[in-house]
Amino acid sequence: MPRPGRFVTIEGAEGAGKSTQARLLADALAAAGLTVRTTREPGGSPGAERLRGLLLSGDLEWSLPAEVLLHFAARADHVEKTIRPALAAGQWVVCDRFSDSTMVYQGYGLGANRETIAALTAMLGLAPDLTLVLDVSVETSLARLTARGVPPDRYERLGRPFFERIRAGFRAVFEAAPQRCMLIDAEGDPAAVAARLRAVVAERLGVAL
Amino acid sequence: MPRPGRFVTIEGAEGAGKSTQARLLADALAAAGLTVRTTREPGGSPGAERLRGLLLSGDLEWSLPAEVLLHFAARADHVEKTIRPALAAGQWVVCDRFSDSTMVYQGYGLGANRETIAALTAMLGLAPDLTLVLDVSVETSLARLTARGVPPDRYERLGRPFFERIRAGFRAVFEAAPQRCMLIDAEGDPAAVAARLRAVVAERLGVAL
Repeated sequence: MPRPGRFVTIEGAEGAGKSTQARLLADALAAAGLTVRTTREPGGSPGAERLRGLLLSGDLEWSLPAEVLLHFAARADHVEKTIRPALAAGQWVVCDRFSDSTMVYQGYGLGANRETIAALTAMLGLAPDLTLVLDVSVETSLARLTARGVPPDRYERLGRPFFERIRAGFRAVFEAAPQRCMLIDAEGDPAAVAARLRAVVAERLGVAL
Repeated sequence: MPRPGRFVTIEGAEGAGKSTQARLLADALAAAGLTVRTTREPGGSPGAERLRGLLLSGDLEWSLPAEVLLHFAARADHVEKTIRPALAAGQWVVCDRFSDSTMVYQGYGLGANRETIAALTAMLGLAPDLTLVLDVSVETSLARLTARGVPPDRYERLGRPFFERIRAGFRAVFEAAPQRCMLIDAEGDPAAVAARLRAVVAERLGVAL
């Protein structure tokens, strides 16, 4: 049986650069000779992808408790069908968003019960070995979304206070679990940010990158 | 503000007569001058009906933890969108299946973690005022399913031990919460069973039926 792989999650607000950094980190791990599985939430298994459609399509309005449970139903399927098997096979898993995103968006952002979200997280029975929390200012988030061509009405209607709650929420997640999480300054050049991530992964998980 | 309504759930194995008895009980409550909302799970709200499709269609194979969470996501939406508003408006809600069905089918039947199901049930923040557990022998269940024209392969492949676990599970649910539940002998003529249900509802919930 191979040595189990490691489970790394990348978290942060929209515009923080998560998907770019997930790709660059996966490339660096692969270059170091590791087998890497990249994935993202919501989604990552056939069932979870169907739930992603239901959650993000906007044609159904979910009550907030149902929205939280749907995220965890998708996550449980993703864990059982994709993440656990990959780890058991010795692969490293790099995942763009995981439970912390539900805590921050539904909990800190929308006001869902945070103790419930913590209890649901514990029920998964699998926690990341390392969570990289990408931190950027609200100005940077909004500027990057605009540069990416995201229509401003999609996030402007949430309002600046929402983005501030999200940023504060991710910082609170880091402060509550500093053994698992590292807060990374994600301002500036993506290559420089990627170097910061590699240094943290190397130090925390004992791999030469 | 009207006096809040009462929440009655009807539980039991397939073939126990739940939907017939739910309808007959609702008719009796309505005849007593009460406003009654009948509903059923999985489903009961637009989002929950979509999840019912995903759960029952069989085109997606869910991991068991995800299946449990999906049932509770549907249930949370049903509670928030349909049941709570009806109760708040003074209506009586008669619901064909609720949390006990997840405890019995996924917990006792399929082996999902029963403490997790109990914790998810508590998170709903709403329990039935009365749960009527319809009890029939496994022979009666199977005979009624056959008489109803359900193709035998659908339940025969689950096997008789599965049906025995379901029956034992519903009896265990009743024994764990006798203040909330009543075990009803559901063998024999539907009209006679309906009379038993009316007597229990009258006694437990103080309404003349």
